[in-house]
Amino acid sequence: MKILLKLAYVGTAYCGWQAQNNGNTVQQRLTDAAHRLFGFECDVTGCSRTDSGVHANGFCATVSKRGELGLETSVPTDRIPRAINCFLPDDIAVVSAEWVDDGFHARYDVKSKEYVYKIFTRQERDPFLAERAWHHPKQLDVKAMNAAAQYFVGLHDFSAFMAQGSKIVDTRRTVFSAEVSSRGDTVEFRVSADGFLYNMVRIMTGTLVEVGEGKISPDELPNIISSCNRSSAGITAPACGLYLDRVFYK
Amino acid sequence: MKILLKLAYVGTAYCGWQAQNNGNTVQQRLTDAAHRLFGFECDVTGCSRTDSGVHANGFCATVSKRGELGLETSVPTDRIPRAINCFLPDDIAVVSAEWVDDGFHARYDVKSKEYVYKIFTRQERDPFLAERAWHHPKQLDVKAMNAAAQYFVGLHDFSAFMAQGSKIVDTRRTVFSAEVSSRGDTVEFRVSADGFLYNMVRIMTGTLVEVGEGKISPDELPNIISSCNRSSAGITAPACGLYLDRVFYK
Repeated sequence: MKILLKLAYVGTAYCGWQAQNNGNTVQQRLTDAAHRLFGFECDVTGCSRTDSGVHANGFCATVSKRGELGLETSVPTDRIPRAINCFLPDDIAVVSAEWVDDGFHARYDVKSKEYVYKIFTRQERDPFLAERAWHHPKQLDVKAMNAAAQYFVGLHDFSAFMAQGSKIVDTRRTVFSAEVSSRGDTVEFRVSADGFLYNMVRIMTGTLVEVGEGKISPDELPNIISSCNRSSAGITAPACGLYLDRVFYK
Repeated sequence: MKILLKLAYVGTAYCGWQAQNNGNTVQQRLTDAAHRLFGFECDVTGCSRTDSGVHANGFCATVSKRGELGLETSVPTDRIPRAINCFLPDDIAVVSAEWVDDGFHARYDVKSKEYVYKIFTRQERDPFLAERAWHHPKQLDVKAMNAAAQYFVGLHDFSAFMAQGSKIVDTRRTVFSAEVSSRGDTVEFRVSADGFLYNMVRIMTGTLVEVGEGKISPDELPNIISSCNRSSAGITAPACGLYLDRVFYK
């Protein structure tokens, strides 16, 4: 058996999830914390890579003994989150832990992932949202953005919404839901899919913001999608507004 | 005429509002920003001192030319917030500006101030609330806390809720409203008064948390207040959960 952890992190200080030789990453911090808690070296596998500066409310990762499929510990399961949090910095926290089979894979067994993108539209910035939302100080037509977002739903080739230079062969993904809503000066785009291409949510968001500004009509979305041409879509929204919100497993 | 600014700040990085010889303060940052915007040195007067690490959603401060009662500028009033924000760090933002008479005083003309104190009660900490709420991982009886808070309302000698060593002569204050509520795992204490003694909201909060834990009965509050004895009240809650929310002028 291995341990499946759900964690939240403020991504601002990190070069994303994935461990790198030169870089402060969430995976590295969690690997170190697991080592300190369990007393042996661990392998930590995440549900996804996240970009530098991207946040998570419900990132999932498994922990097993290095080179093995599972691990054994005397720490009671319900104590694991608080115990491991003692070894994590303030901007990363494990919120729950459960046991899963040796054969479980944190990335390959994902059924769907849900991201939220936050845009703050007030003229004056909000210091509490610095690096936690995209400050885009213009009124946005949320109704038009939501209408446009509906065209994302379904099975499509999303290569128009993939960063150039990506080497993925199959660029088709199924979007299960997409919704744009607002509360006060904050506009939120929430999207779930069976998988996402590199920068897909950020390019979707950049495109929807151009819809909200009246630069693109919602009805143009089907053509933008079917063009399979990155330059037809909008800009790549900044990383700081993006949150990996929830992960669902098979 | 002088300018009255409303500002929000994340207090974590600051030794409070008040300028000091050795310390990074919000007043110093705002004074520097005003100098850079207007091109002449300025006097900046705040509505209140805030402690190190305390936050603000609606702090008020006036700006006048150094040594004078007012100032003159060609910057249109509605442009002042965005313009001054260009010279402020990310964790401080001016959200509005208006002109007030030369005789207006940001501190002496305050009619009432409203503070909010945030407590996060989930077992596992929330990285997005690090230094932005008091992490107190115990269930609290919010109804009992709210019942206790009602005893604060009215004109009382609050010396039991003042940090020891304060040299204030008149320790009576009028509390206009006090309310404890919860949403999810966050408990909020909101209190407005004509003025606050040193650490008053933080000691009120520490006392209410002991009520929420069942250590103090709500009905003991009148005796704690009338004791005028700091040691009768609860602990001083940490600075990081406190927000100066709103200021009302005569």
